[in-house]
Amino acid sequence: MNSQFKTLGIVGRHRNQQAAETLQELIQYLSALNLNCLLDSETAPAIPNHDLQVLSRPELCQKADLLIVIGGDGNLLHTARDAVYHHVPVLGINRGRLGFLTDILPNRFDKIKTILEGDYILEKRFLLEASVIHQDRVLGSDLALNEVALIPSSVPHMTEFEIYINNQFVCSQDSDGVIIATPTGSTAYALSGGGPILHPKLDAIVIVPMFPHTLSMRPIVIEGNQTVDIFISKNNTAQPRLACDSHQLIETPLGSRIQIKKFKQHLDLIHPTDYDYYESLRSKLQWGRKLS
Amino acid sequence: MNSQFKTLGIVGRHRNQQAAETLQELIQYLSALNLNCLLDSETAPAIPNHDLQVLSRPELCQKADLLIVIGGDGNLLHTARDAVYHHVPVLGINRGRLGFLTDILPNRFDKIKTILEGDYILEKRFLLEASVIHQDRVLGSDLALNEVALIPSSVPHMTEFEIYINNQFVCSQDSDGVIIATPTGSTAYALSGGGPILHPKLDAIVIVPMFPHTLSMRPIVIEGNQTVDIFISKNNTAQPRLACDSHQLIETPLGSRIQIKKFKQHLDLIHPTDYDYYESLRSKLQWGRKLS
Amino acid sequence: MNSQFKTLGIVGRHRNQQAAETLQELIQYLSALNLNCLLDSETAPAIPNHDLQVLSRPELCQKADLLIVIGGDGNLLHTARDAVYHHVPVLGINRGRLGFLTDILPNRFDKIKTILEGDYILEKRFLLEASVIHQDRVLGSDLALNEVALIPSSVPHMTEFEIYINNQFVCSQDSDGVIIATPTGSTAYALSGGGPILHPKLDAIVIVPMFPHTLSMRPIVIEGNQTVDIFISKNNTAQPRLACDSHQLIETPLGSRIQIKKFKQHLDLIHPTDYDYYESLRSKLQWGRKLS
Amino acid sequence: MNSQFKTLGIVGRHRNQQAAETLQELIQYLSALNLNCLLDSETAPAIPNHDLQVLSRPELCQKADLLIVIGGDGNLLHTARDAVYHHVPVLGINRGRLGFLTDILPNRFDKIKTILEGDYILEKRFLLEASVIHQDRVLGSDLALNEVALIPSSVPHMTEFEIYINNQFVCSQDSDGVIIATPTGSTAYALSGGGPILHPKLDAIVIVPMFPHTLSMRPIVIEGNQTVDIFISKNNTAQPRLACDSHQLIETPLGSRIQIKKFKQHLDLIHPTDYDYYESLRSKLQWGRKLS
Repeated sequence: MNSQFKTLGIVGRHRNQQAAETLQELIQYLSALNLNCLLDSETAPAIPNHDLQVLSRPELCQKADLLIVIGGDGNLLHTARDAVYHHVPVLGINRGRLGFLTDILPNRFDKIKTILEGDYILEKRFLLEASVIHQDRVLGSDLALNEVALIPSSVPHMTEFEIYINNQFVCSQDSDGVIIATPTGSTAYALSGGGPILHPKLDAIVIVPMFPHTLSMRPIVIEGNQTVDIFISKNNTAQPRLACDSHQLIETPLGSRIQIKKFKQHLDLIHPTDYDYYESLRSKLQWGRKLS
Repeated sequence: MNSQFKTLGIVGRHRNQQAAETLQELIQYLSALNLNCLLDSETAPAIPNHDLQVLSRPELCQKADLLIVIGGDGNLLHTARDAVYHHVPVLGINRGRLGFLTDILPNRFDKIKTILEGDYILEKRFLLEASVIHQDRVLGSDLALNEVALIPSSVPHMTEFEIYINNQFVCSQDSDGVIIATPTGSTAYALSGGGPILHPKLDAIVIVPMFPHTLSMRPIVIEGNQTVDIFISKNNTAQPRLACDSHQLIETPLGSRIQIKKFKQHLDLIHPTDYDYYESLRSKLQWGRKLS
Repeated sequence: MNSQFKTLGIVGRHRNQQAAETLQELIQYLSALNLNCLLDSETAPAIPNHDLQVLSRPELCQKADLLIVIGGDGNLLHTARDAVYHHVPVLGINRGRLGFLTDILPNRFDKIKTILEGDYILEKRFLLEASVIHQDRVLGSDLALNEVALIPSSVPHMTEFEIYINNQFVCSQDSDGVIIATPTGSTAYALSGGGPILHPKLDAIVIVPMFPHTLSMRPIVIEGNQTVDIFISKNNTAQPRLACDSHQLIETPLGSRIQIKKFKQHLDLIHPTDYDYYESLRSKLQWGRKLS
Repeated sequence: MNSQFKTLGIVGRHRNQQAAETLQELIQYLSALNLNCLLDSETAPAIPNHDLQVLSRPELCQKADLLIVIGGDGNLLHTARDAVYHHVPVLGINRGRLGFLTDILPNRFDKIKTILEGDYILEKRFLLEASVIHQDRVLGSDLALNEVALIPSSVPHMTEFEIYINNQFVCSQDSDGVIIATPTGSTAYALSGGGPILHPKLDAIVIVPMFPHTLSMRPIVIEGNQTVDIFISKNNTAQPRLACDSHQLIETPLGSRIQIKKFKQHLDLIHPTDYDYYESLRSKLQWGRKLS
């Protein structure tokens, strides 16, 4: 077929039998359409028989015109950073039930074909960039599609810190930590923590306190282009840590500052044309359906 | 003095001794500055001795270049609609403690002087317009600076309704009702109901379920220019009602539709130059102050 | 058959076709077993063909050894008061899905037979008795199996009131009202309002604030034998009301006191021997099932 | 003076200048009353000049008739276990503001005198005992006056587990963890996590989910004599941990079971006769005071 996306990069969940089968079927489906597919090197071991070229994640992102990710939202999350750095759009296929990000079901490869033919919705999702600064040195920085979370040290402990927005003092807190989430992340960890749902089109960031000592603390939603700074008080006895999309940790020493702001590049997320955000909400949160 | 605002309209809380005293003092202060003041007809009875012209609220809004409201946030709320209709900016003086909207303390008339001299922050706050439509007829409509709330009939009852955003079905609900709030209203009734705080600059609307039967319902924040439609199911046995800024009620018959969207005109809210939104949050919600 | 309960009183939801069919089938089933059945006068019109004696609710409760209620939890709630006054146990049959109180499905009449043969669980559920006292006169009083709720006047309004427990001052509140619930009611309205679930065996009462102005208010769980007093402040401008199990309203004038305490008699609730409280929680709240 | 408690054990916060001064003053005050005082060995270094006998915590608990703890609620918590093992009552003095457990202010030594004279309230607070069992071996066990918390491994991760109460399956969960708290602990960590307040006299335990994936999870309050079992699923990829009163960690391997039940001995907590539990709530949570 004549695909809008010439080269397809295939990324999947390893160590999951069901996902491996879907992967195998997808590769066969795409090969039958004479499409040029490349395979992610972490994914390859899950597929016993294939003749695709295997590439590291960065190489894959460089050569592919579209990444197809098979798995759950977590897998897509894990791929987002490389995709953003290399400006390659991403399409998610879920292995059985709808995800918020992976919204094609494994038995609907026909939808992928339609997308490759050029019929799709392109949605731009922004990421957050978090940097930890201590004594004028950047100790580390990372991207997050869902959320940046200040979490306790390995020994559980309340952390004392100050929050600033656009250099304006907001409040001090004594809590387990704080979640700063994008609209994409507002239906993930931040939601479990009591945060509101932000519509994906809303250019906003939500700050959700985690187990705050002050009971009148509430989630705050601010404009997407505002900068959040968190100052870790020197009074703490243990050192908290920073988690970006819950998979990587940056140390945040006492006296350090965490700066969080919108990353300059967006993730290009591909949806089938019948994509319905509210349907994913209803389905995943078991909300009420249309009344008869 | 040479005021930027030639004619000042004075509006106050009636039936409150403290507010009456502040009113009297304010009138004396402004008269000493040779400023042209007009008095709201509902406010006038509270002031025994004055020689100001007394006007109805609409007339006052038509002639004044600035409305000065003395009282709590509720008083300013009550004045907002007329002010918006007549494009007159509003300045709030609180009678003792900080409000979110009335942020000048009664002992700081000097701040009013500075504002009249042209030194102030002008903030645009948007309002919601709610209309109830039944069998193709508009049964009523109203404006809200804080929130539009669907509330139970006078006999307490769960109401069954559907929510649509920009004509897309969101969910059905069985609940006491729902609050649709502006950023201004996000620190009022919606906050008591578990909604997030929306920064006043954020162009967004929050939908907060009231006592929902489905426990996984959560507040949703959407773009400010989106339209919310609520369909009152015909299956209900009692008829709910609509409250705009909790002071006026519109009947919402079974089968009716409530349409809520941003009103085309904004309220011009005047603040002193040292206005600090987060300070009002910290003060009113007793959040943590700067750490030593 | 030789039933432990000689005379059965049948109560059902009127105006519901499905419930009417289940009622008809139940009567046939019980008649075939040669059991002595009486029919509730409010229920009778729903059943076109029967030859049962029809009695008013109080008469029914006086003569029956067991009440069988067909419908939802609301129907059983509505029957509870009469059942308690006349010391007659109650058995609930739900019309399609599990309820918390009506836990026999309509296709499981065999479970009723087993119960009549003497094989069942008898659970004692306590009720609350609420009285409104004003100027030394009792204005009204009522019983509640689920909850007593102080709710706003017909025009929405915050109410100012004080809470006392066993004559000890707890706090003042400015809120939409307050819910005082039994363990039975903890999975009903109080749960939607953010209250915890109280196990039915726990001898406790929960006090849940409704949309409190003070954000640090939290539900409080106290011993079942404690007395809650609510004093309606004279400062209010509108008069709130009291709802017992959301179906009856008592006026609560400014300056009045509401006294709420455990009622001296319990409801005897009959369950099949395979009754599983946690299964109803999982089923109704869609909680996680056993892991494989 | 003739004290009801012959030998007093003094325990304080080390490394806090203010607490050290209060300690010094207390020792002088008690010495002037000719009372027999012993000093905790961890506390002694904070006091430069004294002639008291210094003992290890266990020895102190063995010899003292009353422990006087100076510091915050955390200090008393830390002392509770030893006090319970040795049946010695505890009295808490706070260093500046009221605590829930340490309810004598540092400038009210006169209240201590009254207590020593025999005028006091003795309150029994129960503790939880948690044991981790894996492959029929007890890996560890500990006591908690406030709460037992299942928390994530040092790398943040959702944990999958099952909850049983009295051997009845309740639900499975996918969450950050779970808090099982006593009434004493219900105003501590569990409260920040959204749990209800349990009156200290209530014989109950509350189970509070931490950031649950299933949004309809709610805190559950059960009878104090019920046993909670938590089974850590073998499906997890990281191993969670158990914290008792947030200060000690027990490893909980995949496949292990955590058993939590009321400990057989209570803590004897001494209060002055004017002790008012609700006053501590109002003071610490800034609830509304009596209305005028």
